[in-house]
Amino acid sequence: MIRIGMGQIEIVPGNPRKNRDTILQAIEYAKALCIDSLILPELALSGYLIGDAWDQPAFVNECVAMGETIIKATDNIAVIFGNVGLDPDKTNFDGRPRKFNAIFAAQNGELITPQEAPYPFIIKTLNPNYRFFNEARYFTPLPIVAQELHRPVEELLGLLPFTFKNGETFNVAPLLCEDSWDENYSFSPTTTLADKSAIQNVPIHAFINISASPFTLGKNERRHRLFTERARALKTPVFYINSVGLQNNGKSICTFDGQSTVYNRFGEIVTQLPAYESIVQPVLLDKLKPVANDDSCAMYGIADLKDVHPTVKPAVEVPVPSEPAQIYHALHYGLQSFLKQTGIKKIVIGVSGGIDSALNAALYATVLDPSQIYLVNMPTRFNSTATKDLAAQLAKNLGCQYAVCPVEDSLTLTVNQFESLSFEGPNGSEQVKVSSFVKENIQARDRSARILAGLAASVGGAFTCNGNKTEFTIGYATLYGDLAGFLAASGDLWKYQVYNLADYLNKEIFKREVIPQGTIDIIPSAELSENQDITKGQGDPLQYEYHDRLFRSFIEPWNRMTPEDLLSAYKENRLETVLNLPKPISNYFTSASDFIADLERWWNSFAGLAVAKRIQSPPIIVVSRRAYGGDLLESQMAPYYTEKYYELKETLV
Amino acid sequence: MIRIGMGQIEIVPGNPRKNRDTILQAIEYAKALCIDSLILPELALSGYLIGDAWDQPAFVNECVAMGETIIKATDNIAVIFGNVGLDPDKTNFDGRPRKFNAIFAAQNGELITPQEAPYPFIIKTLNPNYRFFNEARYFTPLPIVAQELHRPVEELLGLLPFTFKNGETFNVAPLLCEDSWDENYSFSPTTTLADKSAIQNVPIHAFINISASPFTLGKNERRHRLFTERARALKTPVFYINSVGLQNNGKSICTFDGQSTVYNRFGEIVTQLPAYESIVQPVLLDKLKPVANDDSCAMYGIADLKDVHPTVKPAVEVPVPSEPAQIYHALHYGLQSFLKQTGIKKIVIGVSGGIDSALNAALYATVLDPSQIYLVNMPTRFNSTATKDLAAQLAKNLGCQYAVCPVEDSLTLTVNQFESLSFEGPNGSEQVKVSSFVKENIQARDRSARILAGLAASVGGAFTCNGNKTEFTIGYATLYGDLAGFLAASGDLWKYQVYNLADYLNKEIFKREVIPQGTIDIIPSAELSENQDITKGQGDPLQYEYHDRLFRSFIEPWNRMTPEDLLSAYKENRLETVLNLPKPISNYFTSASDFIADLERWWNSFAGLAVAKRIQSPPIIVVSRRAYGGDLLESQMAPYYTEKYYELKETLV
Repeated sequence: MIRIGMGQIEIVPGNPRKNRDTILQAIEYAKALCIDSLILPELALSGYLIGDAWDQPAFVNECVAMGETIIKATDNIAVIFGNVGLDPDKTNFDGRPRKFNAIFAAQNGELITPQEAPYPFIIKTLNPNYRFFNEARYFTPLPIVAQELHRPVEELLGLLPFTFKNGETFNVAPLLCEDSWDENYSFSPTTTLADKSAIQNVPIHAFINISASPFTLGKNERRHRLFTERARALKTPVFYINSVGLQNNGKSICTFDGQSTVYNRFGEIVTQLPAYESIVQPVLLDKLKPVANDDSCAMYGIADLKDVHPTVKPAVEVPVPSEPAQIYHALHYGLQSFLKQTGIKKIVIGVSGGIDSALNAALYATVLDPSQIYLVNMPTRFNSTATKDLAAQLAKNLGCQYAVCPVEDSLTLTVNQFESLSFEGPNGSEQVKVSSFVKENIQARDRSARILAGLAASVGGAFTCNGNKTEFTIGYATLYGDLAGFLAASGDLWKYQVYNLADYLNKEIFKREVIPQGTIDIIPSAELSENQDITKGQGDPLQYEYHDRLFRSFIEPWNRMTPEDLLSAYKENRLETVLNLPKPISNYFTSASDFIADLERWWNSFAGLAVAKRIQSPPIIVVSRRAYGGDLLESQMAPYYTEKYYELKETLV
Repeated sequence: MIRIGMGQIEIVPGNPRKNRDTILQAIEYAKALCIDSLILPELALSGYLIGDAWDQPAFVNECVAMGETIIKATDNIAVIFGNVGLDPDKTNFDGRPRKFNAIFAAQNGELITPQEAPYPFIIKTLNPNYRFFNEARYFTPLPIVAQELHRPVEELLGLLPFTFKNGETFNVAPLLCEDSWDENYSFSPTTTLADKSAIQNVPIHAFINISASPFTLGKNERRHRLFTERARALKTPVFYINSVGLQNNGKSICTFDGQSTVYNRFGEIVTQLPAYESIVQPVLLDKLKPVANDDSCAMYGIADLKDVHPTVKPAVEVPVPSEPAQIYHALHYGLQSFLKQTGIKKIVIGVSGGIDSALNAALYATVLDPSQIYLVNMPTRFNSTATKDLAAQLAKNLGCQYAVCPVEDSLTLTVNQFESLSFEGPNGSEQVKVSSFVKENIQARDRSARILAGLAASVGGAFTCNGNKTEFTIGYATLYGDLAGFLAASGDLWKYQVYNLADYLNKEIFKREVIPQGTIDIIPSAELSENQDITKGQGDPLQYEYHDRLFRSFIEPWNRMTPEDLLSAYKENRLETVLNLPKPISNYFTSASDFIADLERWWNSFAGLAVAKRIQSPPIIVVSRRAYGGDLLESQMAPYYTEKYYELKETLV
């Protein structure tokens, strides 16, 4: 009766020593739980999103050395883990030492390898190169090795044959993350391994997939569908082991959600580990039954590695949490981990009385003691009493530190200083004029770069960017102003998701009204001039119900839309379907000309100045299938309209 | 007598319509020059650095459609150009429509294709994935196609067979950029094509390599070495056609330098087109002699396409310009093009009297009329009379608009406002204290985010970031302060390169002292507090001669160095060689402890807080082999020291 250990451990990117220690601890723990074979995640020593740290040979060698320590620690246990594989005699195509994203399997201090494998480790076959996945940049995949050996890839894949003390054998079909997500590839490692097993008449006891897979809305549903189909079709259980932790590529902060899962041979889910928790969970292979706490094997409590106490039966229902619940979980964990990683203990937040800053304040209040959160309201004469009161109410509801710090005097000083200034030179004497629009941006920069940055430095903390994805899309924010901050926690949320999450926080997390209902009800407005007076109903120049969906189509579909696609859909009366609009388009625009003028206005922003702003914007916690930052690579270019767009437009106006 | 046209055209990224027009114009021009075969650069319709615009099917289809217009325009001429090749029936491994980086060859409206090619175009074999090259993200390379067809790559490569009216044949071995830079790959398209030609007894008249290759210091020297060797070994001329223009991946602004070159069968350079100029140059294939202006064929003057008037003979010496000359050329062209692309016509520059801002002011004065450049000196009581006078002198020398705009009042206002502020809440009443260090950063942000950003908006222009690579490395700059700006023109220059370029500008470009000698001579200092008093010789905490070289080792070597490598070199007395120090290390540090303390101080900055700053820093014009931004991908992680580092350290202190 083989006992498998699901090693859903937390991995700290760029810290092989720390990860080695975590793994050694997990191995000790697994031994105490009488586990025969412990399965750990992909790239468990280095971390996955470590940027070009792979260019440092000393770092790569450190990962290899730490991996060797793991191999030595496998007396009386089999351990499967991901690490960088190195071939010092060859180079990658970039001329640097040849590296592989690899699986290492060790037992009693020795590496176990499929007889077919060209190296003592197993090389990843399918290397993803999209979103923030850049594996071709760092790793040589198995198909290249095969091509160099003038052999078919199939010949290099094989099973990991384990034998345990009691003589039991355990044949594992090893896969690395993307290897299982093979729908778009011309080669399937899973199918190949299954076919070889059938031909050679060697049974596969389990597929294991070790992953480093960040959370994205909808990802786990897709995984369940894919893995369920495979397990059922091949009549073989699948162990999916994913890491937990927080990793980033600079701009994109990704939460690795774990949710490691065992699928039985009928494709049913036997157990799924909780999201974002570091856990070693034993599972009995023959029964595929998670081992409960009352098992005869001793239990040890170890700080970072919690055991779960499953009451599940073979085949469980895994409920899919609501969208706000999933988003909350990711952001809460992301914030908590990011503060821990950066050592930031105090947070300054500019609160306007509006929804975005209120949401951010409430989110931080779920990870920090409210006494460490400094809320600052920074009014000018353009700010209404209503919003100022709402800001104060928010602080009171959350129990945060609160201050009002007007920017009126500073705005006056700046405008006076500018208007009394004259440039001397070839143009003669040139006075500076400050327009009303320029004054708006002066206020925004004064709030963030002067007040918030200064106060954050004074209290010894950091200040936040409260922007949302709708604003980021069109650059509806001021650079070095409301676009500044150490992190944009809500930067991957459309405005509707901001509202939904605010509602979720009140109802499900705080279970009381921490974000004032007034904040949820008022019209969103920047309140930067007399033309943005909420008491006159003057808010943002957006119909969020429509624009959230329009802007999403610019970036989130796998094949992204352009004005041509949208105008074509409009003309063919498909736009409601394409954008999933709740109302006919005529509810938002009364004529084709209005629709087109609005489309061009925002496309010009999105593809124009907003790109320049995003280049200098803060990191974002990723929740969507496409976030700004390192997930969507952008070049500063002029906005473009295709020939077909112009032809379509001509038929419509 | 076949006449080849070197089509070194300017490509505008993301604007297929504009590029189509340029190409059609080039074709017309080539016809007027009696050119038989016009060779144009790689990805000539789309541009090369266009980020994830490849995810937009409408954009991809537009490139294909524009390519078809080019093909139709090839009556009485052969045209070879780069474009995206599309296979709508297949997908890339990311699931998006299958795209190839491809060569199209057309003559009399028909595509000419090697008989071996699986598509009517030629697919790039070697796709680079390093620096800002991300081809695996977008394109399927030939080896994947071969693997799917279960055929060796060799079988899919072949020659382009052209026949001209007079019956002359022209067999071209087609290569795309990286295809020629095959030193680190396990497969060489060049060798394969040469071997096949020998076996099939079909002569290759010329190799052509069409490229989109950005300027980097040292790149052209390496290219000459590589291409010369190949031409000589294979006894075949090589035509290298590179585009000109400015392209970016957001953070990295790359100048594409052209410098298209013909190598004869002896590996000698026959002609090299000037850097950064849009040119169609006819060359007679049999004599490999550039055609001079007095040729019988009519000449047409076309705005964007200048003809050169070479007086060169076959085999010319191509002098390598000095480093400052190359850097100047790249930055001058980069600035000029970036201003054109972004439509920015006025520039505001904060000038301190120091070298970095002076260099930037002088650089902008080479691309803008000085009357459009607004220099602003923003002193506090910490700024010396010496530097204030130097700033004024600079403005006078350059003839720019100039104003003095002190930040003393604003600093006082902010400090008073903060110190009279109290946060109320769970901590009780909490007063804000402003430390001297916080005051320094308040000044820096006040200058950039308040004054420069506000003035730039008021005059209708943009303001610059004057930072250099030495500062960027360690984050010796304030976020939203001196790190802000629309562009960091000198952001890829080490401090010594800043000085060398300043000297070059005075001596070679302006031919007079525009950057005051006093600015070159004073000790570099931030002048942000009484501890940075230049009159007392208190400057930056850096020995630039040493630290420039130390910091370079962190990022520029192909295999980047870490404290382990540096400490190891120190211990083994190799550090002077490794870092190329002009003096023994003992000149900079008197003990191992001092050396180590300094190393750790700056490594902690480089790998720590400076990463967070770089994530929000402005775009940089690339000149080095590794620039911050999209060239060096960085994750925010804790600074790391390997086990070996600690062991070495123990032996030394």
